[in-house]
This record gives sequence, C-alpha cells and structure tokens, in this order.
Amino acid sequence: MATLGEIAAAAGARLQGGDAATVITSVAPLNRAESGQLSFLIHPRYRPYLTTTRAAAVILSSADVANCPAPALVTDHPHIAYARAAALFALATESHIGVHPTAWVSPEACIAADAWIGPHCTVEAGAVIETGVVVGPNCVIGEQAVIGAGSRLVAQVTVCHRVQLGRRVLAHPGAVIGSDGFGLALDHDGRWLKVPQLGGVQIGDDVEIGANTTIDRGALEDTVIEDGVKLDNQIQVAHNVRIGAHSALAGCVGIAGSAQIGRHCMLGGGVGVAGHLEIADRVQVTGMSLVAQSITEPGAYSSGLTVEPNRLWNKISARLRRLDELFRRLAVLERKMNQNSTPPSLIPSDRD
Amino acid sequence: MATLGEIAAAAGARLQGGDAATVITSVAPLNRAESGQLSFLIHPRYRPYLTTTRAAAVILSSADVANCPAPALVTDHPHIAYARAAALFALATESHIGVHPTAWVSPEACIAADAWIGPHCTVEAGAVIETGVVVGPNCVIGEQAVIGAGSRLVAQVTVCHRVQLGRRVLAHPGAVIGSDGFGLALDHDGRWLKVPQLGGVQIGDDVEIGANTTIDRGALEDTVIEDGVKLDNQIQVAHNVRIGAHSALAGCVGIAGSAQIGRHCMLGGGVGVAGHLEIADRVQVTGMSLVAQSITEPGAYSSGLTVEPNRLWNKISARLRRLDELFRRLAVLERKMNQNSTPPSLIPSDRD
Amino acid sequence: MATLGEIAAAAGARLQGGDAATVITSVAPLNRAESGQLSFLIHPRYRPYLTTTRAAAVILSSADVANCPAPALVTDHPHIAYARAAALFALATESHIGVHPTAWVSPEACIAADAWIGPHCTVEAGAVIETGVVVGPNCVIGEQAVIGAGSRLVAQVTVCHRVQLGRRVLAHPGAVIGSDGFGLALDHDGRWLKVPQLGGVQIGDDVEIGANTTIDRGALEDTVIEDGVKLDNQIQVAHNVRIGAHSALAGCVGIAGSAQIGRHCMLGGGVGVAGHLEIADRVQVTGMSLVAQSITEPGAYSSGLTVEPNRLWNKISARLRRLDELFRRLAVLERKMNQNSTPPSLIPSDRD
Repeated sequence: MATLGEIAAAAGARLQGGDAATVITSVAPLNRAESGQLSFLIHPRYRPYLTTTRAAAVILSSADVANCPAPALVTDHPHIAYARAAALFALATESHIGVHPTAWVSPEACIAADAWIGPHCTVEAGAVIETGVVVGPNCVIGEQAVIGAGSRLVAQVTVCHRVQLGRRVLAHPGAVIGSDGFGLALDHDGRWLKVPQLGGVQIGDDVEIGANTTIDRGALEDTVIEDGVKLDNQIQVAHNVRIGAHSALAGCVGIAGSAQIGRHCMLGGGVGVAGHLEIADRVQVTGMSLVAQSITEPGAYSSGLTVEPNRLWNKISARLRRLDELFRRLAVLERKMNQNSTPPSLIPSDRD
Repeated sequence: MATLGEIAAAAGARLQGGDAATVITSVAPLNRAESGQLSFLIHPRYRPYLTTTRAAAVILSSADVANCPAPALVTDHPHIAYARAAALFALATESHIGVHPTAWVSPEACIAADAWIGPHCTVEAGAVIETGVVVGPNCVIGEQAVIGAGSRLVAQVTVCHRVQLGRRVLAHPGAVIGSDGFGLALDHDGRWLKVPQLGGVQIGDDVEIGANTTIDRGALEDTVIEDGVKLDNQIQVAHNVRIGAHSALAGCVGIAGSAQIGRHCMLGGGVGVAGHLEIADRVQVTGMSLVAQSITEPGAYSSGLTVEPNRLWNKISARLRRLDELFRRLAVLERKMNQNSTPPSLIPSDRD
Repeated sequence: MATLGEIAAAAGARLQGGDAATVITSVAPLNRAESGQLSFLIHPRYRPYLTTTRAAAVILSSADVANCPAPALVTDHPHIAYARAAALFALATESHIGVHPTAWVSPEACIAADAWIGPHCTVEAGAVIETGVVVGPNCVIGEQAVIGAGSRLVAQVTVCHRVQLGRRVLAHPGAVIGSDGFGLALDHDGRWLKVPQLGGVQIGDDVEIGANTTIDRGALEDTVIEDGVKLDNQIQVAHNVRIGAHSALAGCVGIAGSAQIGRHCMLGGGVGVAGHLEIADRVQVTGMSLVAQSITEPGAYSSGLTVEPNRLWNKISARLRRLDELFRRLAVLERKMNQNSTPPSLIPSDRD
C-alpha cells in the first residue's frame, strides 16, 4: 500500500491530475485494473485499453497523457518508473535475523549479527556470511565460501567451497554455484581421467542467478561473473567462462569452457556458445542460435530457424542436404550458358 | 502381486484362455518375461517375441490373440490397459501421516491431518497442505502456498510463496515452482533494473512436473498451467506463460515469457518457444525446433535438422551461407535464358 | 603442498634440471605462476609464455624442454601428467565418518562404519551406503537405493528408490537420479494416463554426474549408465537409455527415451538425441546438433549452424524456405538448356 505521492517519488514520475494522498493498494494491467489499483502503459499493444481503464492511476509517457482517464504518473521512461513503483507492492516476506534452530552452522563459520540462516541450511567451516544476507531454507554454503553483504539465496541454493559472491547477489532456488568444471584428460586406455578443478568462482555485485542455473568453478583460475550480470533459469556456465558486466542471458543458455562474453551483451533463450572464444561488448544473439566462432563487432546475430509445417520442412531439409549438388548443377548451367551465348551481343549479328 | 482377474478388471481387458485366480508377481517385456510375469504387446517391434514368450499372461489387442501362447488380456487399447495394469505393480512406498520430527513447519501453516510432511522439509507461514498430500524429504513450501489434495512432491521440490497447486499434482525432485520471472528494465546507465515479479503460479489438477523443471511466477498476473498438463524434466517455463489443458512437453523445452500454448499440444524435446506468441490447440512440434512466430493451425511443425557426417555438414553449412548468391545467380541465368530463347517457339522458325 | 619428487612420481613424469626436494605450494598457468608454483604446457597457445615463466617447475613434453627456464617434469602425455599432479593440490575437504546429528537415517538403512552422512541428509529404509562413501549436505537417498563404495554425493543430490550407484561415482549438487520417466498413454478422452515407471537406474563404476543433471528410471527395465561415463551439468537422460562405457557428454545434452549410445562416444554441449535409436561406438557429435536417426559408423557428425549477422541470417533463412522452388527452377532451366543446346555441337552446324 502506498500513496500516489509516494509512488511518484519512487518512480521518478510527475503526478498529473490526481491527489498525492490517494491510497493505492496494488498493481494491475490496464484492462483489469479496478479502483484503488495502479496501472501502466509500457507496451503499445496495451494502448487500446487506456481510454477505458478503471485504474486509480496510470504510469505512462507524456505522449499518452491526453488519453488517460485517470490521474497520470508521467515519465520519459515508463518501464523504469514501473519497475521502481512496483517494488513498493512486492510481498514483504517476513524478515528474520539469526540462525534458525534447524540450521546447522559450523562453529568455524562467521555469520554477521544481522544476517539470517533459514531452516535446514548447512553452513560449513570457514564460510563468511556478511551483513544483511538472507539465506533461505535448505541452502548449502560450502567451506570458505563468502556471501557478500545484502545478498539473498532464496531456497535450496548450493554455494560450493571457496566461491565468492559479491554484494546484493540474488540466487533463486536450485542454483548451483561452484560445482566442478567438466575437465577430463583421455588416458592411454580410453578412460577419462578427472582433471582436478582447483579454481573458484567470483560473482560480482548485483548479479541475479536464476532457478536451477549452474556455474562451474574454474579449472585453475576462477570463473568470473562481473557486476550486474543477470542470468535466467536453467543456464549452464562452464569453467573459466567470464561474463562481462551488465550482460543478460535468457533461460537455457549454455556457455562452454573458457568462453569470454563481453559487457552489455544479451543472449536469447537456448543460445549455445562454444568454448575458448570471445564475444565483443554489446552483442545480441537471438534465441536458440549457436555461436561457434568469436564475434568481434557489436550487433545482433542469429542462426535459429523457425518452424514450418512438418511436410514442408521435411522437403526443405532434404533439399538442404543436396545444396552442394545444387551449386554444382548451377555452375554447369552457367558454363553452358556462357559457351552458348558469349559474347551474347554477337548472337544476333551471328544470325544476320 | 495381483491375480489375472484383478489385472483384467484394472486394465479394462477381457481375460481369454486363462484362470482369473492365477497370481502374477511382476511385469516384464515379452522377450524377458518368465513364469509368473505379466507382459504386453504395444509396439509392433515386439511382435516377433510374442509366439515364444514365457509370460504368464499378455496384454494385447484382438488382432494378436491368435499368436499368443499364454493367457491373453484382450483390449482395443493395449497401451492404456498396460498403464492401468502396471499401476498394480508399482513399488508401494511406505505411507506416512503427520509431520516428520526433522521437518520445520511454521505454526501459521495449515496441514491436513492425513497429509505427510517428510524429513527436513520447510513449510512457511500461511502455507496450506490439503488432505492426502505427500511432501517428500527436503522440500520447501513458501508462504501462503497451497498444495491441493492428493498431490505429491517427491523430494527436494521448491514451491515458492503464494503458488497454487491443484489436486493430484505430481512434482519430481528438484522442480522449482514460482521462482521470479526474468523481468528487467534497462536503466539510463546501461544497468538492469529488476522488475518486481508480483504475480503467482496456478497449477491445475493432475499436472505432472518433471525433475529440475522450473516454472516462473508471473510479473503481475499469474503463470498458468492448466489441468492435465505433463511436463518432463529440465523444462523452463517463463513468467506469464499459459499452457493449455492436456498438453505434454518433453524434456529440455524452454518457453519464453507470455507465450500461450494451446490445449492437447505436444512439444518434442529441446523445443524453444519465443515470447508473446500463441500456439493453437492440437499443435505438435518435433524435437529441437524453434517456434518464433504464432501457430494458428493444428498440425505438426518442425525446424530441426538432423546430423550428417561432419565433413558433409561443413560443406552444406558453407553453401547455406551463400544461398542468397545462389538465388541471384539463378535469376541471372533465367533472364539470359529468356533473352536467348523467348519466344522459344520462334527459335526453330528463326533458323528456318 | 608436495615436493617435485612426489609430483614427478604422481604424474609419471621425469624430473629434469631440478631438485626432487623442492617444495611446491600450488599450481598456476605459465604466465601467472610465481616462485613455489607448479605450471604446465598442454595447449600450444600457452607456448609463448614458456620462456619467461617464473614457475618453480613445468610439466611439458620433451619437445619443449629446451625452452624451459625452470626445472622440467617431462612426459609424453602432459595433460594426463597434469591431471595426476594437480590432484595433489586439491583442497582437502574435511574428512568425516559417521552420521551428522541433523541427518535423518532410517533404522532400516545400512550405513558402512566408515561412511559419512552429512547434515540434513535423508536416508530412507533399505538404503545401503557402502564403505568410504561421502554423502554431502542435504542429500536424499531413497528406499533400497545402493551407493557403491567410495562414491561421493557432493550436496543436494537426490537418489531415488532402488537406484544403484557403482563404486567411486561422483555426483554434483542438484543431480537427480531415478526420477520417473516420462511415460504417458493417451486416454480415450484426450487425457494423459501415467504409465507407471517400474524400472530402476544402474550407474556403473567411476561415473561422474554433473550439477542439476537428471537421469530417469526405466519404464520397466533399467536405465543404464556404464562404467567410466562422464556427464556434465544440466543433462537430461530419459528412461531406458543406455550410455556405453567411457562416453563423455557435455552440458545440456538431452537423450530421449530408449536411445542407445555407444562406448567412447563424445556428445557436444546441447546435443539432442531422439528416442529409440542407436549410436555406434566412438561417435562424436558437435555442439547443438540433433541426432534424429541411428548412427552406425564411428566418426564426427554435425547439424549445428553458427551465427551470422542478423540481417544476413534473415535473408538466408527466408531463402532456405524457398529451397524447393530453387530446385524446381533450376530443373526448368536445365531442361530448357538441354532443349536449346542438345546436342550442343550441332548448333553451329545448324547455323551453317
């Protein structure tokens, strides 16, 4: 619950046509909002709902004010303003301090006085839990791991030994940080010999790590996730990868060992990045594409193919397999054509 | 252990050529079954094993009865009959009631008298565990979450705050339901601002959720999985997705935000669905395809390409990159050909 | 900490130009190693750093000895030697014996006297934990599961009922072994009927299972992972799959039901394998390829397409959809050309 005045202040928006003391109870889309609810116009596809909305107030840009039947919270950046306003309405989870009686904390771990260690957590020797950290239920913090100030591990998160999390890191359920990298040497007899993974993981400040995402520790040096990186769910980050600051990776992305991703990059869902390559800053890759060689220039890249009806696709797919033949047949034709017709201008005169 | 009579009743099959009192101890494939074991003929590739099977009885369709050397359980739908019969032989896991002494249940949670909360579970304030629910070991149930009657969380499942599970939901180990959606607004300085995820998740009745599958909560409204949906392992469902009733998604599928999947759809393993699109009812998508635009008609769709020997594939792949050139070269040839030969009928007369 | 003599012995390398008593404290890459550190030359891209390294000793092959400014550990197989030497420097995690007081172990489970059951573990009735096993924090071992001698479950691992792990199996956090397979029969009314998954899982000796990897139990017979198989993170192995000995699968691979993978195979990251097919021994599949039919010959296979700039890719992708048209247009041209020019040698004479 917040007043329009509080919302305007949080959102960095200008209140137009309303009373700052009006109380708002929650947030809803334009077409569903009722009295007492805040709404917003960010995507053009919601514009048709503006004139008839019953919202108590709407976050929007100045271009849309004229069509707003309710008090307006005007801003040049409605998405940012919405993100900030919505934070006022997030469910306040109960705030705790201390160690839950069912948690097990090594006497050699160091827990800040105002941190919270939830039920059934395990905190091993030498781990450091800094001020304001919230460790939700059933998490495991390995030996000598460091959880930076203000971080939150939602639940069932595993942070392995010697992993370092920066400040305000948010890790969602099932995330695993610091599992062994996939390092194997082929032995003489065709068996795999495990290469010990001696490195760690460094996670920067303000990093978000999605549910069931896995980040492997380095083989020798550390795997590094720089400040402000956002990782969605089910992502796999292999050993010795570096992801540059403020890059965002959507769900199911896989990054192979030692790949270096630039800053401010965006990888779509299901993208695969091969090992030992570099991606420049400000590169966007669309969903389900494969990056198999380095990308040196910023810009958008793709290799995904969208569906066709199965029958058509089978035909395309079969033709694709004969693409080399096609090129060769075309070249034959071109040669013949040139034999027949070169110099083409002569043909008419030939006939004369 | 069950008699042939009991099996016939459960399977909805007609016992032919056997004694209803015969005791069956377990189930096995046709080619491995021994005396006392039940077998079945569903896939044609097992037909060669029928005449020599040593099974004590076989579930099959009437077309195969003549070749069956054992008592037959005859049905028009052997797969369904098998599914029902096999349920008689599932390992009865020990059935418990109450709260395990190592579980932690908030005094403000509400647990049905006949439900079971297993070892090391955490059940937060306001959670509701309905009648007959089995919560296996090391699960986490967040604040105000509701687990509908008869549901089972196998182990290590996380159900976040305010998530609602219907009746008879089955969630496998490592599943995460209600993690934050991947909502980000780009701030002026190139940093990502988290958009609070205020919505929840609604899971219908009879939904199955695979191991390590993740379902994000909605940004504002709920993510919805309708009745009877079956999700395999390692699936990612983003915020505000809706999956229509009785759709089945195979392993490793990823669905981006706000995508709407119809009813009775089937998505193959590894399929990716882009955000903000709609897939009609009764659509099938084959494995590892990308759905990047809406599908409005039922039917089968594909965009996956199967492997070729590496050398050949490299050639195809290089040619593919020159496909535009190929089209242009072909057009040049066509123009030349038309110049040379149009009207083709005139050529002979020309020569006359 | 180890002496050069100990390292040489462990690595199976010959110490040249150094004192066997020299003490080494840790391991570092050639370009970062300081005095007291061991380094190595495995990949050619590190060769430029050899002559100026400050490492106390370097593992390398005889071809590189002449350029090594430090004592050399000479071997024909530097990668293997390094793997063995590095094991001497792995962080010795504290070694425990017994059952942690916060663990819950069924009185009907059988735990070897020298095994370790960590905090918040759950071990159900009939489970067998053999000698030397380490079960890390917050793991769940189901009824009648067997964990073979010397195995280690790092943390948060789920081993479901009746699953059998061989000796020296290493399972990383979040791995799930023995979840139900995705077995469904379509009922008359379009609903899915669950097919009970009555089989188990057999994991061989020396298998490694990555973080958040899932392995389903068989529908009737067992899912089988043979000796020495290495599975990276986030892999999905469906029911009744068999993976042959000493095969290695990189992250995010998905294997559909009943697929049979040969021995000594290598699957790249994100590869998908369709169900009910066979892959021969010694097959390699490159990253993000789809194997949709059986592979009968050893060798390397691919179907992945790497990214292009988005604009170019959109053009290629649009052309690809017209590939069938292209073939048909080419065939038309070829026919015309043959009409016009056959026999080409006659044309000039015709004109004479």
